[in-house]
Amino acid sequence: MRIGALKLKAQLYCGDALAMGPGKADLLEAIAREGSISAAGRVMGMSYRRSWLLVDEMNRCWRDRLVETMPGGGKARGARLTDTGATVLAAYRALETALADATTGETLATLDTLLRTEPLSPATPLSD
Amino acid sequence: MRIGALKLKAQLYCGDALAMGPGKADLLEAIAREGSISAAGRVMGMSYRRSWLLVDEMNRCWRDRLVETMPGGGKARGARLTDTGATVLAAYRALETALADATTGETLATLDTLLRTEPLSPATPLSD
Repeated sequence: MRIGALKLKAQLYCGDALAMGPGKADLLEAIAREGSISAAGRVMGMSYRRSWLLVDEMNRCWRDRLVETMPGGGKARGARLTDTGATVLAAYRALETALADATTGETLATLDTLLRTEPLSPATPLSD
Repeated sequence: MRIGALKLKAQLYCGDALAMGPGKADLLEAIAREGSISAAGRVMGMSYRRSWLLVDEMNRCWRDRLVETMPGGGKARGARLTDTGATVLAAYRALETALADATTGETLATLDTLLRTEPLSPATPLSD
């Protein structure tokens, strides 16, 4: 999530597994919109295998799975968010909003004032 | 920054250059404590060249440099934070605190309730 010069990343872990993050949230939204894991992966530029593995990881991290697949053959089988999936996605987006709101204070303004628009050119390394 | 299952990362960019982030803030703190770039790099397990390049990148991203080196020979030359360096470091830490405070609401509690402690084992990939 970008807020001017600030890049914020919120990730939820279940043990060492990434349960939710920016990419997985985008994938959930794409699945809800496209109605299938393969179509969602395609619009996000990832392979079916990759998108399937991300969905599987999410499904294993939460008390209920976030995505359910519907009967049907092949890669084109339908998929949709479960109620838990919709709840987790909404809560994650709300968390991102709360984080963004937390940056509206004076602190980020202080940093923004001091930050250049573009960096100066690299200096010659100090000689030893 | 870890808050239970949540990992938060705040990065400030100047163009494509990373002006401040968790690692650079830690390096600034180490320089303030150790009094030299090489000693700070050493306690953080990085080479002198690596720590010098990170300092140089920071110095080029802000209106004033964050670290100044003191006269003296070789890698052991002293270094300290400028006033701007101390200001930026404090503002970055304050931003992290504001972000952490923003996660104390109901949203993270909702997510925490639904999250498993450990993920289930990977499933057998769906056959195509």
